[in-house]
Amino acid sequence: MTLRVGVIGTGTIGRDHIRRLTTVLSGAAVVAVADIDRDGAAAAAPPGAETFDTAEALIRSDKVDAAVICSWGPAHEEQLLAAIAAGKPVFCEKPLTTSEAAALKVMEAETAFGRRLVQVGFMRRFDADYRRLKAVIDAGELGAPLMFHSVHRNASVPAGLYTSDMPLNDTLVHDADVSRWLLTDEIAGVEVRLPRRSRQGGELRDPHLVLLHMRSGAIVDVEISVNIAYGYDIRGEVSCERGVAALPNRPATVVSDLRGIRQAIPEDWRQRFVEAYDQEFREWIAAASAGTATGPSTWDGYAATLVADAALRAVSSGNLEPVAMIRKPELYDVPAAKAA
Amino acid sequence: MTLRVGVIGTGTIGRDHIRRLTTVLSGAAVVAVADIDRDGAAAAAPPGAETFDTAEALIRSDKVDAAVICSWGPAHEEQLLAAIAAGKPVFCEKPLTTSEAAALKVMEAETAFGRRLVQVGFMRRFDADYRRLKAVIDAGELGAPLMFHSVHRNASVPAGLYTSDMPLNDTLVHDADVSRWLLTDEIAGVEVRLPRRSRQGGELRDPHLVLLHMRSGAIVDVEISVNIAYGYDIRGEVSCERGVAALPNRPATVVSDLRGIRQAIPEDWRQRFVEAYDQEFREWIAAASAGTATGPSTWDGYAATLVADAALRAVSSGNLEPVAMIRKPELYDVPAAKAA
Amino acid sequence: MTLRVGVIGTGTIGRDHIRRLTTVLSGAAVVAVADIDRDGAAAAAPPGAETFDTAEALIRSDKVDAAVICSWGPAHEEQLLAAIAAGKPVFCEKPLTTSEAAALKVMEAETAFGRRLVQVGFMRRFDADYRRLKAVIDAGELGAPLMFHSVHRNASVPAGLYTSDMPLNDTLVHDADVSRWLLTDEIAGVEVRLPRRSRQGGELRDPHLVLLHMRSGAIVDVEISVNIAYGYDIRGEVSCERGVAALPNRPATVVSDLRGIRQAIPEDWRQRFVEAYDQEFREWIAAASAGTATGPSTWDGYAATLVADAALRAVSSGNLEPVAMIRKPELYDVPAAKAA
Amino acid sequence: MTLRVGVIGTGTIGRDHIRRLTTVLSGAAVVAVADIDRDGAAAAAPPGAETFDTAEALIRSDKVDAAVICSWGPAHEEQLLAAIAAGKPVFCEKPLTTSEAAALKVMEAETAFGRRLVQVGFMRRFDADYRRLKAVIDAGELGAPLMFHSVHRNASVPAGLYTSDMPLNDTLVHDADVSRWLLTDEIAGVEVRLPRRSRQGGELRDPHLVLLHMRSGAIVDVEISVNIAYGYDIRGEVSCERGVAALPNRPATVVSDLRGIRQAIPEDWRQRFVEAYDQEFREWIAAASAGTATGPSTWDGYAATLVADAALRAVSSGNLEPVAMIRKPELYDVPAAKAA
Repeated sequence: MTLRVGVIGTGTIGRDHIRRLTTVLSGAAVVAVADIDRDGAAAAAPPGAETFDTAEALIRSDKVDAAVICSWGPAHEEQLLAAIAAGKPVFCEKPLTTSEAAALKVMEAETAFGRRLVQVGFMRRFDADYRRLKAVIDAGELGAPLMFHSVHRNASVPAGLYTSDMPLNDTLVHDADVSRWLLTDEIAGVEVRLPRRSRQGGELRDPHLVLLHMRSGAIVDVEISVNIAYGYDIRGEVSCERGVAALPNRPATVVSDLRGIRQAIPEDWRQRFVEAYDQEFREWIAAASAGTATGPSTWDGYAATLVADAALRAVSSGNLEPVAMIRKPELYDVPAAKAA
Repeated sequence: MTLRVGVIGTGTIGRDHIRRLTTVLSGAAVVAVADIDRDGAAAAAPPGAETFDTAEALIRSDKVDAAVICSWGPAHEEQLLAAIAAGKPVFCEKPLTTSEAAALKVMEAETAFGRRLVQVGFMRRFDADYRRLKAVIDAGELGAPLMFHSVHRNASVPAGLYTSDMPLNDTLVHDADVSRWLLTDEIAGVEVRLPRRSRQGGELRDPHLVLLHMRSGAIVDVEISVNIAYGYDIRGEVSCERGVAALPNRPATVVSDLRGIRQAIPEDWRQRFVEAYDQEFREWIAAASAGTATGPSTWDGYAATLVADAALRAVSSGNLEPVAMIRKPELYDVPAAKAA
Repeated sequence: MTLRVGVIGTGTIGRDHIRRLTTVLSGAAVVAVADIDRDGAAAAAPPGAETFDTAEALIRSDKVDAAVICSWGPAHEEQLLAAIAAGKPVFCEKPLTTSEAAALKVMEAETAFGRRLVQVGFMRRFDADYRRLKAVIDAGELGAPLMFHSVHRNASVPAGLYTSDMPLNDTLVHDADVSRWLLTDEIAGVEVRLPRRSRQGGELRDPHLVLLHMRSGAIVDVEISVNIAYGYDIRGEVSCERGVAALPNRPATVVSDLRGIRQAIPEDWRQRFVEAYDQEFREWIAAASAGTATGPSTWDGYAATLVADAALRAVSSGNLEPVAMIRKPELYDVPAAKAA
Repeated sequence: MTLRVGVIGTGTIGRDHIRRLTTVLSGAAVVAVADIDRDGAAAAAPPGAETFDTAEALIRSDKVDAAVICSWGPAHEEQLLAAIAAGKPVFCEKPLTTSEAAALKVMEAETAFGRRLVQVGFMRRFDADYRRLKAVIDAGELGAPLMFHSVHRNASVPAGLYTSDMPLNDTLVHDADVSRWLLTDEIAGVEVRLPRRSRQGGELRDPHLVLLHMRSGAIVDVEISVNIAYGYDIRGEVSCERGVAALPNRPATVVSDLRGIRQAIPEDWRQRFVEAYDQEFREWIAAASAGTATGPSTWDGYAATLVADAALRAVSSGNLEPVAMIRKPELYDVPAAKAA
């Protein structure tokens, strides 16, 4: 009855997922760990778990029911294909793959297999605030969504390590995914505008204003600021025909003192989304235990890859860069009743 | 057409009302000033205004249509009686009088005159936030009001000058008046409890918890803190049978920075109630120009005096001290339609 | 490594805890169930769990490491004594016992045993909002707490089943416990005032205004309204010497539509405190796995019993009813560092 | 000492300004009225005021110290030139003029005269919320402003009368003016994007997403929705280098009932900006009494005209349309100290 999980990659996020599966959630146990750094793997493995030399060996092992991929992006394609070949459910941290071609290959393999096996790590879809926001929009009382203002602010990013492409490659994908999901829509094109540069990040290109043109005609405008100092602040407001719906302030003690009437702001994404990560894996365990996957799919990972590519092109061109998707395989059609 | 106003008393509040009547509001002009300190009166008088030696001379002057009393409390009784004798509308800063007997004497004179002439300076009734709160309660959708939590916090009071009786004598009267007005009720009894003493004010008795027992049975609990450092914070929440209604935060820029997401708090009563004072006098000018008075009445000033007396007795006795009012003269009956 | 739990009592709350221990949390398994209603026990037992005829048999079973008591209040004393006799950790839903004498007997047994075994079900202490509020107060920047305004509103209570003693017996205990914990203080006396009665509950005595006099001199004023229709609304604001700290609004989508700019309010205690219950049991599992108990103790359950008794006396007497506790056994001293 | 004002145009806004100057504010009297509809003028004139056949006659009259222009846009140019020729201060409702050429002509006349005489009716600059927001930005603690998200929502516009150019011609000018003023910057170019059309307005083009590219590089993104049903909702948030500052909710009673915890939203611009209009005229009276003008200038009216033109071009072209201003005459330089 307990799902036997193998974890591939034991960096920060991998170790955090091991902790989560071992000490927070019920229904799963980490029985295997793999990392190209064997010492890292051994250090991260919980008592009794086996350490594997390669991801492929872990995936093939009879002791492993399902895999969690936390390796670096370029390794995902091969590992995903191995999991699908083995018919085993797999959770894959973003990005699904680092190229459109690779994403298509994974999608082909999964559709050929005929059952969803892959869940991609877009944790915002499991956040209670975002879920309530989606429920309000889906209820339809406010009419159709016409605009979505999405704000993504990081207190800081590591100087030097974080390059100017990363706001679009790593950060925008969350806003893009959540836009597609909240509005039940696809992204048809991307524009990027570069506002006055913040001096907080030296020569880093920051902030960005991104416009996502949805197929329905709705427009999403995204503010991405990655060195805004004061905290990790995720905001979103959907303007509909007869009303608007927005994410609330995070719960925090309301203090009145000489600095005003005030509430603390999360410091980083861990603090902000810790419950979303828990819920993401709770649902993954349930689906994987049934031999399949729910939540963000290979299709969603593919869309994210295309949008990041279009956004990078849009920076150079200054134009509206189209996002050309293949026809959506039936496997990824979500019944309307489950969309909410 | 312009109301010719004489101002008695040119201390801080007197000078502020002269400024208000002269440069802010239309329909009135300050034509006369009186103060026991003649130099102060001369300095405060606007160009062209006459300076009087005594309040009585000012009140009797043919050039004066209406008076504003800003002298110290013990002088109010005589000045009010003079204004009523002259049949002239008069605005009187709180307290109406400093004893129950004096209040009754003024009330007798006014009822004998047969028309309201006196407006007492309870400015909260003119505050837009309080008026909206009253409108919600009066609308009745929430059912009858059962409890009212009233919070009165001062950043600080002058050490030495502000004595332990003043929270009940000077401060509580605002909460008491606004309770009677918001709930359309009278106060039947008062209890006072003394919480742990704040070290912010040395030996000053602070804070106070006051319970006002209303005739309807509703109970008002009042927190009075006069040295709370962080600002001037006036709060109020009415619990009704099917819902609650509360004063909002004051409008202030919502700043997100390292200190949190925050709004500034008013520093003092001037900043908090400046518009209420303007509105108070706007309505006084209108009524006085018609030869009468509206708003808080001699009856309300009388009630405030009784409540302050009962509160001081309650500190000593620890008991529920009754507030015994005379029967309300018809003159002070407010038509239900105007109650809101 | 997995804690083997036996659950006593399979009513609503018992079944909910079985669900929690079985499908939500890691580290525990429900291996035994007991109920005087054997069919109810059998229906509630998870697959593989044993059904016991009596609580005592369950507690003594070698298969059971720790017990969860969800029976009715009068049965708690005997079951707690059995668990302590067996040296097994036990979670006990409130009330600890239904009399002071019974509470003292349990406390004697536990102190004689020499190690804490009992955790009482005051789940608010595990709520993230309350914990953040306590952290702000304990940090001390606002100075000493002087007053605490605690608001406890239920949308409705079952007519007939919910009697006039229950606001004090069942509801107040939460505000009382959280007051002791937030302020790191004990309750020295209780007053009760009865405001105008709500017509929402017919003849039910509702609302209540309760004053808790703390040993430090701080005063807690509690509003208890149990038929307020609009939702389950738990509020709290602590007034300190140099500032105040309050519970925030619950996270909920901010909707702007014809009804205003608004956020939904929880409907009931399950919706409000579901995460607190999870966290309560997460910490219980950790402590019980180490053979002991943390969190709310027998001492806290004893205090709650005394306060409820005093509150009921205060309704009849109209007086300040003292709460006379025995000297606190060392076993229940919480190191300052762990108080937060 | 009282400013003798002549009002030109007695439509809705003209009558409202007559009321304001006559019964709300001190220091001014409406002594003359002109309208092409003589009956309308006579009906609107306060007692004692003279009625003029033409705007020019009113402006030239010795009895008139200063003029208020509330006629339709195409008439403004001639009336402004007449006021400048007469050396009389003039308040001009927006738009300053209906063409760039006309705006330049007025500016030439005023600069030739050598003293500011014209104040343009951008009332948002007098709104207390906007002023506090500007003060926070100007204080500089948050660093340079990089982005400004401005939201302009109308409950509804009159079907048929309100055409698709009006969101850019009539509505955008407020966001554009407030952007220039808040950021102490000029608009260099305009882009317009058309989101999915709202069905609330039939064939009306609504909503609009407008990007204002400021000279500093800062980007303003404006949401204009004119049929959003729920209310008149003006929002603004400025993202700076180290923090953000936003307009607060409007003060409104916080009601908790079955519809949630909620605050009412203003119904229309009158309700939202009534105090701003009062303050606008209060400051105009002060400046006009000194023979000059402060606040929004001919330069600001000229900028608004250029931005509206560029926005209309941008709808057709889909491109970034530049805003090419002449060099700013010294007359319109605002000393830095007064900028806040």
